[in-house]
Amino acid sequence: MLSQHYIDMTSQKSAIRELFDYGSRRAKEIGYENVFDYSLGNPSVPTPQAFSDALVDLIQNTDPVALHGYSPSLGIPSVRQAIADSLNRRFDMNFKIEHIFMAVGAAGAIAHAVRAVTVPGDEVITFAPFFPEYYHYVNQTGAVLNVVPADVTSFQINFEAFESMITPKTMAVLINTPNNPSGIVYSTATIDRLAAILSEKSREYGHTIYIISDEPYREIIFQGADSPFVAKHYDNTIICYSFSKSVSLPGERIGYVAVNPACEDAALIIDMCGQISRGIGHNCPPSLIQLAITSVLDTTSDISVYEENKNILYKELTRIGFEIVEPGGTFYMFPKALEADAGAFCERAKQHDLLLVPSDTFGCPGHFRICYCIPTEKVRRSIPVFEALAKEYV
Amino acid sequence: MLSQHYIDMTSQKSAIRELFDYGSRRAKEIGYENVFDYSLGNPSVPTPQAFSDALVDLIQNTDPVALHGYSPSLGIPSVRQAIADSLNRRFDMNFKIEHIFMAVGAAGAIAHAVRAVTVPGDEVITFAPFFPEYYHYVNQTGAVLNVVPADVTSFQINFEAFESMITPKTMAVLINTPNNPSGIVYSTATIDRLAAILSEKSREYGHTIYIISDEPYREIIFQGADSPFVAKHYDNTIICYSFSKSVSLPGERIGYVAVNPACEDAALIIDMCGQISRGIGHNCPPSLIQLAITSVLDTTSDISVYEENKNILYKELTRIGFEIVEPGGTFYMFPKALEADAGAFCERAKQHDLLLVPSDTFGCPGHFRICYCIPTEKVRRSIPVFEALAKEYV
Repeated sequence: MLSQHYIDMTSQKSAIRELFDYGSRRAKEIGYENVFDYSLGNPSVPTPQAFSDALVDLIQNTDPVALHGYSPSLGIPSVRQAIADSLNRRFDMNFKIEHIFMAVGAAGAIAHAVRAVTVPGDEVITFAPFFPEYYHYVNQTGAVLNVVPADVTSFQINFEAFESMITPKTMAVLINTPNNPSGIVYSTATIDRLAAILSEKSREYGHTIYIISDEPYREIIFQGADSPFVAKHYDNTIICYSFSKSVSLPGERIGYVAVNPACEDAALIIDMCGQISRGIGHNCPPSLIQLAITSVLDTTSDISVYEENKNILYKELTRIGFEIVEPGGTFYMFPKALEADAGAFCERAKQHDLLLVPSDTFGCPGHFRICYCIPTEKVRRSIPVFEALAKEYV
Repeated sequence: MLSQHYIDMTSQKSAIRELFDYGSRRAKEIGYENVFDYSLGNPSVPTPQAFSDALVDLIQNTDPVALHGYSPSLGIPSVRQAIADSLNRRFDMNFKIEHIFMAVGAAGAIAHAVRAVTVPGDEVITFAPFFPEYYHYVNQTGAVLNVVPADVTSFQINFEAFESMITPKTMAVLINTPNNPSGIVYSTATIDRLAAILSEKSREYGHTIYIISDEPYREIIFQGADSPFVAKHYDNTIICYSFSKSVSLPGERIGYVAVNPACEDAALIIDMCGQISRGIGHNCPPSLIQLAITSVLDTTSDISVYEENKNILYKELTRIGFEIVEPGGTFYMFPKALEADAGAFCERAKQHDLLLVPSDTFGCPGHFRICYCIPTEKVRRSIPVFEALAKEYV
């Protein structure tokens, strides 16, 4: 009998995806240049040339039987070592090969990390606003995702609410900094306070509470932002990384789990990830992509456009009257909507061919998300459109 | 708290993998040419040049932002259409785009198919000898895998045992033809008899029983073999395909689910696969690999070496006195061991630097698996070694 659970899911379409599809149709009607599509977080700058060159070099100069052969289930050893070395160089850490597991993007990494540190019925806590796919990553394992309401004044952590929600069944907190959808980076003070609470509660409950740190935007940091490396502040940190955003490879599904060397049972958790893969049927990212990614471990795409776009939007939208907590990174911004119903607000924006994502799916009503990974000239041309929209609310 | 289930799995090492590792170590001691390693099913012939050319062409002549961008969750439409077209051309079928879901190899495809057609507690039946990872693909979903004992005289289906094991909780049978580890192809008579029983039981129980057809060896068929296309014989067939073997790309993790157009709810099952992906964290195979695979849909690697090796081994080993059901495809052979304890037999073989996999992990005691995807000259040189081994049992 077909699984009713998945049948039901098919009718719950993604609001973001529907908006993007609308934008594509609308662009055909009135021209691409006339649709201000801020809906999708698809990087707009090319991957570094070094990655393309590495791919071609591998294809042309490696024995194809070896190149396309099975990868060990934890990942290709030379690739795991190269990632450990890069993390050590850049963040003054002490990762070894046994702390790295190759995953198909951050989605795959989180799906593994949650299965490693929970059993069905356990609780995972995350903080609004949050990426709505977290529900699927966590609930599908049999664990339960509980969401701490946002602190809308700062989009740092609402600690009062958090402390009231943590229970003896809490096995992990899932954080995302820099954050989708707010663009906010958790400060050193935030991470240290979170770490102190988790250490205390781990002692009180007699079991470790892990931080699962979803870090695909780690390298997209704007000038002046305080951007602590989470694992430096809390031993029991499991990093889930994706190369999708920093080197513009969302379609290539490549990332990793890196367990803090100071974490209890660090190498065991990595070994467990290899076993978890067997049950969910994805045994490693593709060999070719694993090998090529080592060419761009210490670099990024030219991401300066994101900061330029942020600066324009933050300056102009606050001038127009929007309330915004200024992003410290990513290519997202999360202003307050001009009416309580964010869905209605975004519908009005749509009448101006301005495509904004209402905040409700991110667990934080009354706001909207702007994905500004679009050309800067289009950002500039969108400002009068925001102005016209705001005038409707005067 | 760490999941004890996965901790326990880390100590259950794969016998095949351990044997392969032993072979690599031994090759360093006595030379690669002196180790007759028949342990691993890693294709030994290169991928077609067309695939390498397609990769380079895509990398050099496509906008990198588009090339490496997100794939829709069901797969890239042009790729799905090309696969449907190829299946229609080659097998006289009527697949449309909505019947194809791109998956990360057959492992990923089976993990999706089982989740689509079962709920926890349901039963899936497979037939010994069988690929032992099936336990993980099925049991991890919460369904239960039941194994029908082998018919060791033919390695076709033991129907008497099967009919006694099918229950109202049986939602799918998982078959693999051509078969790993036996190399046997199910005959038209076998498939038709299976189809008749499933149709009758579906009526009796009031729900569909699906065939999940694991077909990575579909194109590796030897002269004279009767190799029916399963979906032609049973409407409710879900094909799980991998390009790992036919075009020698095991490390690139690319395959698909194809639901028979005549299957009830065919397009719904594909839509469900897209939802299942969200929970297990792998949203599509990599875009680059999806696009490149369309270059080799109607071809294979030069797989003639597998048939040549089979012919030599079958002729010589039967001459020496081994009992073997002659393979109709794949690069596997599954002779009867010369003592009841297959593990002890393979340990003796190891003393001759002849690496054979004991059959117990395949659910069929007293046999051993030979993977003959190795150079033909090595196959020839191994014959006297088999002879010396057999002499110990005279």
